Amino acid sequence: MDSLEDLLISLALNISVAVIILCLFSILRLIPKNKTFYFRTSPYKVRWSLTRTAPLLKEFLNFQWRNYFKVWIWIVETLEMPEPALIKHAGLDSTVYLRIYILGLKILCPICLLAFCILVPVNWTGQALHHVHDTFHSDIDKLSISNIPYGSNKLHAHIAMCYVFTLWTLYILYEEYKKIADMRHEFLKSRDPCAEEFTVLVRNIPVDPDNSINDQIEHFFRANYPYQYLTHQVVYNTKSLSRLTARKERAIKMLNYYRNKNQRMSENSTIKTGWLGLWGKRMDAIGYYAAEVENRTEEENSEKDKLTSDDTNVIRAAFVSFKTCQEAAKCSQSQQAIKATKWVTESAPEPRDIYWDNLLRPWINTSIRKMLVWATYASVLCFYMIPIAVVQSMENLEEIKKLLPKLAPVIEKLTHMGLVKQIVQLLIPGITLKIARELLRIIIEMICKMEGCISHSSFERRSAERFFWFYVGNIFLGNVLTGTIIQLHRSPFRTLKVIGSFVPLKAKFFMSTIMVDIWAEVAVDILNLVKLLKFRLNPRVKYGDEAVDPAHLLFSASEPQVQYYLLLGLVYAVITPLILPFVIFIFLCSYLVYSHQVINFYDKQYESGAVFWPTVHRHIIYSVVISEVLLMLMLSIQGEKLTPLLIPLPFLTLGFLKYSNNKFRSAFFVYPIEAAMVKDIIQQQPTQLPLDLNELLQDAYMHPSFKGG
Amino acid sequence: MDSLEDLLISLALNISVAVIILCLFSILRLIPKNKTFYFRTSPYKVRWSLTRTAPLLKEFLNFQWRNYFKVWIWIVETLEMPEPALIKHAGLDSTVYLRIYILGLKILCPICLLAFCILVPVNWTGQALHHVHDTFHSDIDKLSISNIPYGSNKLHAHIAMCYVFTLWTLYILYEEYKKIADMRHEFLKSRDPCAEEFTVLVRNIPVDPDNSINDQIEHFFRANYPYQYLTHQVVYNTKSLSRLTARKERAIKMLNYYRNKNQRMSENSTIKTGWLGLWGKRMDAIGYYAAEVENRTEEENSEKDKLTSDDTNVIRAAFVSFKTCQEAAKCSQSQQAIKATKWVTESAPEPRDIYWDNLLRPWINTSIRKMLVWATYASVLCFYMIPIAVVQSMENLEEIKKLLPKLAPVIEKLTHMGLVKQIVQLLIPGITLKIARELLRIIIEMICKMEGCISHSSFERRSAERFFWFYVGNIFLGNVLTGTIIQLHRSPFRTLKVIGSFVPLKAKFFMSTIMVDIWAEVAVDILNLVKLLKFRLNPRVKYGDEAVDPAHLLFSASEPQVQYYLLLGLVYAVITPLILPFVIFIFLCSYLVYSHQVINFYDKQYESGAVFWPTVHRHIIYSVVISEVLLMLMLSIQGEKLTPLLIPLPFLTLGFLKYSNNKFRSAFFVYPIEAAMVKDIIQQQPTQLPLDLNELLQDAYMHPSFKGG
Repeated sequence: MDSLEDLLISLALNISVAVIILCLFSILRLIPKNKTFYFRTSPYKVRWSLTRTAPLLKEFLNFQWRNYFKVWIWIVETLEMPEPALIKHAGLDSTVYLRIYILGLKILCPICLLAFCILVPVNWTGQALHHVHDTFHSDIDKLSISNIPYGSNKLHAHIAMCYVFTLWTLYILYEEYKKIADMRHEFLKSRDPCAEEFTVLVRNIPVDPDNSINDQIEHFFRANYPYQYLTHQVVYNTKSLSRLTARKERAIKMLNYYRNKNQRMSENSTIKTGWLGLWGKRMDAIGYYAAEVENRTEEENSEKDKLTSDDTNVIRAAFVSFKTCQEAAKCSQSQQAIKATKWVTESAPEPRDIYWDNLLRPWINTSIRKMLVWATYASVLCFYMIPIAVVQSMENLEEIKKLLPKLAPVIEKLTHMGLVKQIVQLLIPGITLKIARELLRIIIEMICKMEGCISHSSFERRSAERFFWFYVGNIFLGNVLTGTIIQLHRSPFRTLKVIGSFVPLKAKFFMSTIMVDIWAEVAVDILNLVKLLKFRLNPRVKYGDEAVDPAHLLFSASEPQVQYYLLLGLVYAVITPLILPFVIFIFLCSYLVYSHQVINFYDKQYESGAVFWPTVHRHIIYSVVISEVLLMLMLSIQGEKLTPLLIPLPFLTLGFLKYSNNKFRSAFFVYPIEAAMVKDIIQQQPTQLPLDLNELLQDAYMHPSFKGG
Repeated sequence: MDSLEDLLISLALNISVAVIILCLFSILRLIPKNKTFYFRTSPYKVRWSLTRTAPLLKEFLNFQWRNYFKVWIWIVETLEMPEPALIKHAGLDSTVYLRIYILGLKILCPICLLAFCILVPVNWTGQALHHVHDTFHSDIDKLSISNIPYGSNKLHAHIAMCYVFTLWTLYILYEEYKKIADMRHEFLKSRDPCAEEFTVLVRNIPVDPDNSINDQIEHFFRANYPYQYLTHQVVYNTKSLSRLTARKERAIKMLNYYRNKNQRMSENSTIKTGWLGLWGKRMDAIGYYAAEVENRTEEENSEKDKLTSDDTNVIRAAFVSFKTCQEAAKCSQSQQAIKATKWVTESAPEPRDIYWDNLLRPWINTSIRKMLVWATYASVLCFYMIPIAVVQSMENLEEIKKLLPKLAPVIEKLTHMGLVKQIVQLLIPGITLKIARELLRIIIEMICKMEGCISHSSFERRSAERFFWFYVGNIFLGNVLTGTIIQLHRSPFRTLKVIGSFVPLKAKFFMSTIMVDIWAEVAVDILNLVKLLKFRLNPRVKYGDEAVDPAHLLFSASEPQVQYYLLLGLVYAVITPLILPFVIFIFLCSYLVYSHQVINFYDKQYESGAVFWPTVHRHIIYSVVISEVLLMLMLSIQGEKLTPLLIPLPFLTLGFLKYSNNKFRSAFFVYPIEAAMVKDIIQQQPTQLPLDLNELLQDAYMHPSFKGG
C-alpha cells in the first residue's frame, strides 16, 4: 500500500465484502426455515408472519414482500433493547461484555476528534517527508509523526496530547469500573437466593484413617461453625461414571430418533450393530437401543453405588453449605486450618460454572503444574515469532518471489494488474495471521486446561490473559520488530532505534488487518454459515429431536481481540491518528453484531456476574502503558528535548491501576459480610416466599452424571 | 592489599582491635557500678559478690580477684542458656532473631568445607594467573575462579557446586521456615490470653452525620456479629494531649529529682525559671515543679474531656473486641463493608507494638503517600551511588592524591611506611562506607515513617526491606560497578562484561570491610561506650531516679546487614571461596555478642511473635538468585559452554520461594479459625483461671497518654 489512493481502494473493497455478508444475513434470516436457527434465543416474537402457500415452498421462501423492504430492521431491533431487559434476558456477563465496545467508543471517539483537529494538521505541516521518495514512506506517513523534522518544537504538541489522552482514558476507565462494580452489586443483591451464596468449596481435606470423609467434614465444620453449618456434598471421582452416562445418553438419543422416524415414516428402521453401523448383524433399531439404554442404566447405577460406598473414590474436596449467606461469606474468606494448605476454602462457583474435569484433579499438583504451564506458554510464544516473521516477509511480493521462486512468473503477471496486486498484498498477511492465531487459540486453551482452574469463568479469564500477551508480544510488537528487520536487512543490534522509527510505518499494515477483520471476524460471525449448513444437513433435526449445538460468547478469544484493536488505537492515537476511524468503525460493527448475537443466538452457559471486568480493566491499562513507552522511545529518537516530561506518565498509570483495583477489585471476588447480611435479612422478610434451603442445596453441587440418575 | 601476606597482616590487625574491645568489656563489666548498666535485664544473679571496702572505691573496683581470672565467663554464661528459657526471658522475636546467625552458619559451614575441598584446589591448579603480574591481580585471585583459563573444562566443577550449594541452602531454608512457623504456632497457643487475640482494628469508618461514631460502630458490629460483639475503643486524635502529657511527665521527673536531691543533700534547691534555667526569677525548685505538675494535670484533664465529648476529634478508626478469639479471627480476615475501602479490618497489633503517630494519620492518604515514598526511595538510592563511587576512588591512594592535591605530601610519606599504608588503604573505605550507611539509615527510617505502618514491627520490616535493597544495589553491586569502572578508566558501555570479570577482584575489598565490621560493628556494640558514658554523666542517675535509656535490638538495621554478609558468602562461595571463613567468623562473633545483649542488656520493646521471618527468608532467596545470576554472567564470560545448564536454577529458586510462602507464610500473618477455636476451648476449661475479658480489654487499646490519667 503506497498511497492514500491505495488505502481508499482497499477500504472500499473490504467494506463491500462486509456489506455483502450483512445483506446475505439480512435475507437468510427472512427464510422461515431459518427462524429456529437465527432467532433461537430471541425474546421478541419475530415480527414477520407467514402467508399460506404450498407447504414446501413456505419453508424456504418468505412471501411477505414487505419484509424485504425492511431488511435492516434487525439493526433497530437489536439496538432498541434497554440494558435492564438485556440483563434479564442474556445475563450480566453478556451485557457487561457488550459494554466493552461502548467503553472503547467512549475512549476513542473524543481522542479521534482531538487528534484530527490538532495532531493531523501539526503532522501535515511538518513537511519532513514531503521531498522524500523511497519505498517505505507513503502519503499516509505525511499525516503521522514521521513527517515532523528532527528536534522540531511541534513535537511538544504530541507530549501534551499524550497527557490529555491518558487522563481521558483513565477517567473513563474509573467511571466504568465503578459503574460495573455497582451493577454487579445490584445484580447479586436482587437475584433470587441461589446455592452458591450459602456454599463454600473446601479443597485438600487431609486424610484421616480413623474417620470417613463425611464424618471428618461434619466434625470439622460443626466445631468451627457450630450454629451455622448445614450440610455438605463430597466430590466423587466421577471420571468413569461420566463415560458411562455419556454412552447412555447417546443411546437414549438414538432411541428417540428412531422412535420419531418410525412414527413419521410409518416403518420399522433397522440398523447394523457393527462398527459405525456399516456391517454386523441387522437388528430392529428400537429394540437394540432400548436394550442398550437398559444395560447402560444398570452399569451406571452399580458405578454410583461403588463410588458412594468407598472413600478411596473421593477427591479430597467438598461443597459445604451454611444456614446463612453471612457465615458462608466468613468461611470463604478466612483460613480454616493451622496448616495453610489444608482445608482451603473459597466461594463456591455457580453450579453450571464448575469445571468438573479440573476439580477432579488432585489439588496438591497445582503449583507444580502451574510452573510447567508457564514454561510451556513462554516457549510457545517464542516459537510463534517464526510464523509471524514469515507473514511479515510475505507482505512484500518481492520477498515471496525470493522464498518461492516457482511462483515468480505468476507474481510477475499479477503485478501487472493493479487491483489484484492490492488484494494479494493486503489479504495474504491478514489471512495467514488469522490461521496462525486460530492455531494458537487451540494451543493456549490446552495449556490453560492443564493449569487447573475449577470454574469455566476463571478458565476463560486465564486464557484471555494468555491470549492478550500473545497479541501484545507476538502480533503487535512481533510484527513491528520482525517486519522492520526484514524490510531493512539490518543487523538486530540497532533494534531499539529501528522499532522506534518504524512504529509509524507499520500503521499501514495494521490498518489493512483491521479492514480484513471487519468482514473476516465480525460480519462472518453473524452469518454463521458453517453452523447453519451443519444444522441443515443433520438428519436428526428433521425429526425435531436435535437442537442447534449450543453457542456462546467466547470471552477468552474475543476479549483479547477487542483489546488488540484498542491497543492499536491507543498506540497510534498520537503517532498516526489515521488509524483511529478504522478502530472506531470495527468497534461499531462488533457492537452491532455481537449485540444481535447475544439477544438472538447465543446461549447462556453460566452466570459469573461480570467477574471478568478487572481483567478487562487491567488489559486496557497495560495498553495505555505500552502506548506511553513507545511514544517516549519515538520522541527521543526524533530528538524531542521535553521527552523526560513523559516519564512520570507510565508510573502514574500503573499507580492508577493499583488505586482503582484497591477500590473496586474486591467487589468482583469477595462477598462482603455487610452484603451477605442484607441478603439474609431480605430472605427473612415475611413478604418473601419461605426458602427451603435443603431443597435448594440438595443436588446443586452434585456432578451432572450423578444427577442424571 | 596485594598479596596473601597483606591479607594476613590486616586480619591480625583487625582481630586484635576486636579482642582489645572485648577484653575492655570483660573488665568494665566487673566494675560494680556498671552492674546496673551491663546487666540491667539479666535473668542470672550476677555471679560475683562485693567485698567490704571503702564505699567510694567499692563502686569502681571489683576486689574479688578471682573474677579477673574468669574474665571470659560471660561467653559461657551466654551460650549455655537453653532456647525455651530464652523465649521466656527475652521473647520469641529476639530468640528467632538470634537463629538468623545460626541459620547463616548452618548454610555456610558445609558450603565452606566443600568449597575448600573441591573448588580451591581446582582454582589453584588453573594457573591462568600464575604468570600475570599487574596491579589488579594478587595471590588471593589465584584461589578464585579468575585463575582458570578461558573455556577450561574445570569450570564444570563450578556449575556442579552451584547446584549443590543452592540445593543445600534451599533445604536448610525450608527446614528453618517450617521450624519457625511451628515455634510461632506453639508460642501463640501457649501464651496467656491477651487483648490482641480478641480484637480487630477497624479503619476508615465512614462519616455518618446522624450518629455518633460510638453508636455507628456498635450498630455495625451488632448487626454483622450479633452474638459475639463485645466492646470497642475509638481512636482519638491525641496529638495535642500527648504533648501535654509529655510536659507533665517532664515536670514530675524534675519534681522527683529535686525531692531526692534535697533529701540527700539536706538543702533546698532553687532554680531560675527562665530559658534553660539560665536566667529569670529564682524560685524554690520543689514549689515551682509542684505547681507546674498541678497546672499540667488540669490542662491534660480538660483536653481529655474535650476529646471524648466531640466526634470531630476522632480518627475514623477503632479497636473492636469480640467475646471469642474465633470471631475476632473471622472478622479480621473478611471484608466487612460493600465498599472495600470502608470499615477495613485487620488483626489488632499488640498494644505495645502500635505505632500511634502513624495510626493517627488519616487512612485515605496511604496510597498516595506510598507512591511518593517509592519515588523518594528510588531517587535516594540513585544519589547514593555518588558517595559509594567516592569511597571506591579512595581505595586507591593514588586517586586520593589526585582528588586532594594538598594531601599529596602526607600520602607520599605514608606510602614509605608499609603498615600505615595498609591501615589507611583498608580502614578508610570501610569507615567512609559506614558513615554513608549510618546517614542513609536515618534517611530510610524517615521515609518509612512517612509511609504509615501502624505497628512498630511492620515499620521495622519495611525499613529492613528498603535497607536490604540498598545493600544489594548500592553497596554490593554499586561497589563492584563503580569500583571497576574507576579502576579501569573505561567507558561504561562495556559494563556488563566489566562487572562479570571484576566481581572476583572485588572480593579483597569485601573481605576488608568484613574485617573492619568485626570490631567496628559487632565488638563495639557490646562495649556500648557512648551509652555508658552518657549514663554515668547524667546527674539524675545519682539520685536513683533515672534508669538507662531503653535499648533494643534494631531489626531494621541489623537484619539487612546480616543479609549482606550472607549475600557476600553466597555470591563468593563459588567465585572466591576464601571469603567464606571471614563471613563465618563474623557470624560467630555476632551470635555471641547479640546473644549476650539480648540476655543482659536489651529491653523487650514489643512481641510480634517472629512475624519478620518471611522477610528474612525472602531476602536469603534473593541473595541466592543474585549469586546464581552473577555466576552465569561470569561463566559465560569465561567461555564455559555448559552455562545454559544454570538457567533453570534462578527460576527453581524463585519457584521455591513461592512454594514455601504458600505453605508457611500465612502462619505469620493469619490467625486460622482452627487455632482460634483451640484457644477458646482451652480458655473454657474448668482448670483454667476464669478470664475477665472486660478487665483485659478495658484500657488495652487506649492511647498511653489517656491511660496516664
